[in-house]
Amino acid sequence: MSDLLIRNGIPLSLAFGALGLGAAVVLIRSILKASDGNEAMRSIAGAIQAGAKAYLNRQLGAVSMIAVVMFIVIGLLRDWTTAGGFVVGAGCSLIAGYIGMTIAVRANVRTAQAASVGSHPALKVAFSGGAVTGLLVVALGLLSVGGFYLTVLKVSGNPKTAIDSLIGLALGSSLVSVFARLGGGIYTKAADVGADLVGKVEQNLQEDDPRNPATVADNVGDNVGDCAGMAADVFETYAVSLIGGVLVGHLVSPESMAALSYPFVVCGISILGAVLGVLYVNLFKQSATRALLGGVGISGLFSALLLYPATRAMFPDGLTVTGATVTANALYGCILTGIVLTFASVWITNYYTSTEFGPVRRIAAASETGHGTNVIAGLAVGNHATVLPVLLICGSIWCSHEWAGLYGIAIAVVSMLSLSGIVISLDAFGPITDNAGGIAVMSGLDPAVRKVTDELDAVGNTMKAVTKGYAIASAGLAAMVLFGSYVEELKAHLPGQVFHFDLTNPKIMIGLFIGGMLPFLFTAFAMDAVGSAAGAVVHEVRRQLGLKPGILNGTETPEYGQCVDIVTKAALRQMVLPALLPLVFVVAVAAIPSLGKEALGGMLVGTIVTGLFVGISMTSAGGAWDNAKKYVEDGNHGGKGSDTHKAAVTGDTVGDPYKDTAGPAVNPMIKVVNILAILIIPILFK
Amino acid sequence: MSDLLIRNGIPLSLAFGALGLGAAVVLIRSILKASDGNEAMRSIAGAIQAGAKAYLNRQLGAVSMIAVVMFIVIGLLRDWTTAGGFVVGAGCSLIAGYIGMTIAVRANVRTAQAASVGSHPALKVAFSGGAVTGLLVVALGLLSVGGFYLTVLKVSGNPKTAIDSLIGLALGSSLVSVFARLGGGIYTKAADVGADLVGKVEQNLQEDDPRNPATVADNVGDNVGDCAGMAADVFETYAVSLIGGVLVGHLVSPESMAALSYPFVVCGISILGAVLGVLYVNLFKQSATRALLGGVGISGLFSALLLYPATRAMFPDGLTVTGATVTANALYGCILTGIVLTFASVWITNYYTSTEFGPVRRIAAASETGHGTNVIAGLAVGNHATVLPVLLICGSIWCSHEWAGLYGIAIAVVSMLSLSGIVISLDAFGPITDNAGGIAVMSGLDPAVRKVTDELDAVGNTMKAVTKGYAIASAGLAAMVLFGSYVEELKAHLPGQVFHFDLTNPKIMIGLFIGGMLPFLFTAFAMDAVGSAAGAVVHEVRRQLGLKPGILNGTETPEYGQCVDIVTKAALRQMVLPALLPLVFVVAVAAIPSLGKEALGGMLVGTIVTGLFVGISMTSAGGAWDNAKKYVEDGNHGGKGSDTHKAAVTGDTVGDPYKDTAGPAVNPMIKVVNILAILIIPILFK
Repeated sequence: MSDLLIRNGIPLSLAFGALGLGAAVVLIRSILKASDGNEAMRSIAGAIQAGAKAYLNRQLGAVSMIAVVMFIVIGLLRDWTTAGGFVVGAGCSLIAGYIGMTIAVRANVRTAQAASVGSHPALKVAFSGGAVTGLLVVALGLLSVGGFYLTVLKVSGNPKTAIDSLIGLALGSSLVSVFARLGGGIYTKAADVGADLVGKVEQNLQEDDPRNPATVADNVGDNVGDCAGMAADVFETYAVSLIGGVLVGHLVSPESMAALSYPFVVCGISILGAVLGVLYVNLFKQSATRALLGGVGISGLFSALLLYPATRAMFPDGLTVTGATVTANALYGCILTGIVLTFASVWITNYYTSTEFGPVRRIAAASETGHGTNVIAGLAVGNHATVLPVLLICGSIWCSHEWAGLYGIAIAVVSMLSLSGIVISLDAFGPITDNAGGIAVMSGLDPAVRKVTDELDAVGNTMKAVTKGYAIASAGLAAMVLFGSYVEELKAHLPGQVFHFDLTNPKIMIGLFIGGMLPFLFTAFAMDAVGSAAGAVVHEVRRQLGLKPGILNGTETPEYGQCVDIVTKAALRQMVLPALLPLVFVVAVAAIPSLGKEALGGMLVGTIVTGLFVGISMTSAGGAWDNAKKYVEDGNHGGKGSDTHKAAVTGDTVGDPYKDTAGPAVNPMIKVVNILAILIIPILFK
Repeated sequence: MSDLLIRNGIPLSLAFGALGLGAAVVLIRSILKASDGNEAMRSIAGAIQAGAKAYLNRQLGAVSMIAVVMFIVIGLLRDWTTAGGFVVGAGCSLIAGYIGMTIAVRANVRTAQAASVGSHPALKVAFSGGAVTGLLVVALGLLSVGGFYLTVLKVSGNPKTAIDSLIGLALGSSLVSVFARLGGGIYTKAADVGADLVGKVEQNLQEDDPRNPATVADNVGDNVGDCAGMAADVFETYAVSLIGGVLVGHLVSPESMAALSYPFVVCGISILGAVLGVLYVNLFKQSATRALLGGVGISGLFSALLLYPATRAMFPDGLTVTGATVTANALYGCILTGIVLTFASVWITNYYTSTEFGPVRRIAAASETGHGTNVIAGLAVGNHATVLPVLLICGSIWCSHEWAGLYGIAIAVVSMLSLSGIVISLDAFGPITDNAGGIAVMSGLDPAVRKVTDELDAVGNTMKAVTKGYAIASAGLAAMVLFGSYVEELKAHLPGQVFHFDLTNPKIMIGLFIGGMLPFLFTAFAMDAVGSAAGAVVHEVRRQLGLKPGILNGTETPEYGQCVDIVTKAALRQMVLPALLPLVFVVAVAAIPSLGKEALGGMLVGTIVTGLFVGISMTSAGGAWDNAKKYVEDGNHGGKGSDTHKAAVTGDTVGDPYKDTAGPAVNPMIKVVNILAILIIPILFK
């Protein structure tokens, strides 16, 4: 058993990956079999599908151009195997987004139809749609990393070559994911904010009113941002964490086959856990929140239980890391650290963003005294929300490093991310129910249907905030592993030299400042992009309503395509500059002779430190504002239509780019900076 | 000449300090000689004086209690000389605030009176009031640090004892300044936001309408926050920079008398420059902006010119630092670096916060599409505004370290801060004109008077933003010097041990994360405090207007004292927790055995890195929102009363705690963390 796992850990885990893929296919078939409603519903769903597909195709075109340039540059300056890895990573990240979205735009209309039957059937369809993305992302991540590694190993016969080329794969997936998060995020929030500003504020239309020319763009946005963008992002997080584990395993213990295949085994077993969790949600009929959280619990518990014997089997005599022996129990401690960190960060984000607790209620209460106090309260909540996650991350770093050094941190990250399959199913479920509600309203279904989807949507909102907290917390840890890899790679590449990343070295301080600046600059661009694109939507909607007064009384049809076109172009144009920022700064700092290796190291850490705070505070504040508005709409502090509600809507609008554009894009951005630094070591540092 | 300067540099510079004090006395007499207007004006000014005095006295009581505890703790655990230094620093910081405010509440009514004669007389009185604070702060800073050093040196006969006890002085001034910035900031913004929310938004009253029960509290707030709080803050910044220079000078070159007295000489000469600058503004009759910026230019140019021969004279053979020789020209290069950084940071902040340039106008334009887009645009501007200052700081670190190591950075900071005298005169001038306008409206003077004060107030607004950028940029550099001192002190205290503050050490990463968290947590508390205190004011004003309907038609007088009392209590209660945060975290990290020295070092740097970004982005965004509102009020995008204006007011409200409470308090907070760490070395680390 022990020997089997060590020798065949990677192929075995790939088999589990294939199983996950199979489960996703089964889910897809079950979704497609469900009824897609009447003619009106199909027509609206068709418009959303067409818009989403058109956007993703154009995004694909833009990203491909950049990817081809990167491929050639990496191939010429480094090597073609790594460049090949870049293409595989970029391709898989795109595919994850593409398929996830393709299923989502089919599940939405079917969820609307199922909601006319009841709440549980709707939950089943929507959750299955989300689970497809969840399972696909982890299966694709495991298969692409493992498959590429085994292929290169077979062709080159050199494990070092195979591992090095994985850095290309990591960079490809991270870079595509920055584009997908930014482009999708700008699209969805520009359409959302733009539609709300004219529709809700100026014309008193309800959400998803078919008379609003921006309403289709808004629904398309949910899919390209919250489905495709998120899927690419999580694929990246998952693949990069796994690669980080492999990289560090090989660096700290080059002779050990077990150290290298252990991360794969952890991921493989967890896919089994995810499939079980999905089954649980689908089979047991209970309230949505209980079902979803139960699924996560089952999945985590199963992985935790199975990983103990697996760890013991893989490291019967422990693992020798730079002379010292790390026991199997110590490694299992790191696994548990990752799982505990996952559940803790889910709980904390839930505390700060759910209507059940103090923070959201304080924002709602602050809305009574106006727009200004609402925004102040939300910003304060965002800052407060950084404290516990960061302390927990510190605790996790301390424990796992104490137990197993850098490899221990890497294993904690892998263990944390191995739960992605089930966690992401929860996230992807939100936009499907959101869209289902939109289709129900636009196709004139009974208001009871909207009520069912609204309830599911509220659950989805909390889940979305929760998974963002999870993603950014994992990014903090994962980036630390990458920084460690940067240092180790540097040592391996320049064996004679000694490197001090000491804070007393002014180059390190300069690096810290420049790196710390990146998340601020990056989010500033992202917010500007949403603001200006939303402004363009506002002007277009005002223009249409002015030209065709019949739109408002229902005698004329708005040109939905115009708004779709505007946000498509704006998103594609405005995602490029911020997405390229990390590339430019990494290369500049590395290439300036008086900065170089040390300053670059400082820069990596600086980006991690401020990025973690910026990311957590933005996504938490955004989620809290959103739910504070919902809390007021539920009849508190004056309810819908009151001045308090108007103030709460302002916070929600500010929170939109915070939580869906700028904040989550910080996660892949941090990784691009760190991976690129590793990649350019042999190119720039001689 | 050379010998005279080296041997008597400190006494000589103290003579210049006394000269600055004398100039301040002359200005005070000239202000008091001016007419303080009619009976109505005197009565209102009296109410403001009484409120401000009452608040400062109560703040004095609260801070004294904490200071006494700290004095005893420091005395018992460290030594009584250092504890004495703590009392001197705390006392001078309090005195600076007290006198600055006492003059401001007398200059305000005289400025209102002078404004009825013309713009230039009003500028003269208001600027003289500001200049009193400016000159006092630098004179007091130089005299207290130099005087205390010479006294301890004389008594103990040991330079090391004298220098060590300066750390106590630094901590005293920093701690008081955190309290003063927070307490004053909470007071002023709670009153301001509260007065606006009911007065402007609900009752359509103008600014400073005497029918608003919160209007006296609002005017008191300008004095306790923008005058007293700011003066304490700048005193701290100045004293700590000077002490940092002395500390590093002694650490890197213990034998050199010149290295130790050079920072004093730089400060002394610059006081001469400041007096010249003040004279320039008072003597030449031109537009306010040109006069003020001209004064700064003259002052900087004079210091730069005189410091060249002084530096050559003090270091005829250069300075030997750890074996290598630093030339006088290299040291002068560091001086120029500080001066250039001052002018550059003034120019950059002006760019981001003045109505003349793109950023503020973009916020104004974004207000057209609503409250939400206004806030998004402002937050983005705040983040953008961090980039250039941070790059410049990096450049300054690089240059000055390249030229003269850590001592070079310390000299650049001293040179930067030596310009405080004139820079702070500009800052303190703003609230005086603001108050003058309030008195003019409340005492029913001709609207033309208000127009004169309004014009001066707009200039004052930009100046205030500009000096905050200057203070926080200098804090970044000064904190670096303090971190360097921490490391050197640690080495000196534990001579056998080797310390690695290497980023690959997980303790350093944990320290960076915990330190990075502090500015986020600290500003969250500060914003919460303003939000909740403003809410209490809103309820009190609503209560009074409900009880006495005659207030609104002018037949009944509001009870101004009630609002003054509410904000006084709220400010005192809510300043304590955030102000104690840095103390608690420093001691905790130092005392936890598995963290300790290294993690504490990481924590110092983490606080500097995120603090710099948080501080700059908050103060810049706040200034930009304020002026975007003014830009709309000047008739752009629909002007006063339009929906665009309402959205712009929201941004201004959010910006209030950003720019006047949380943002500027980050500056002394960073310093408290760093100084406290130095202070506890001999107590906790054995």
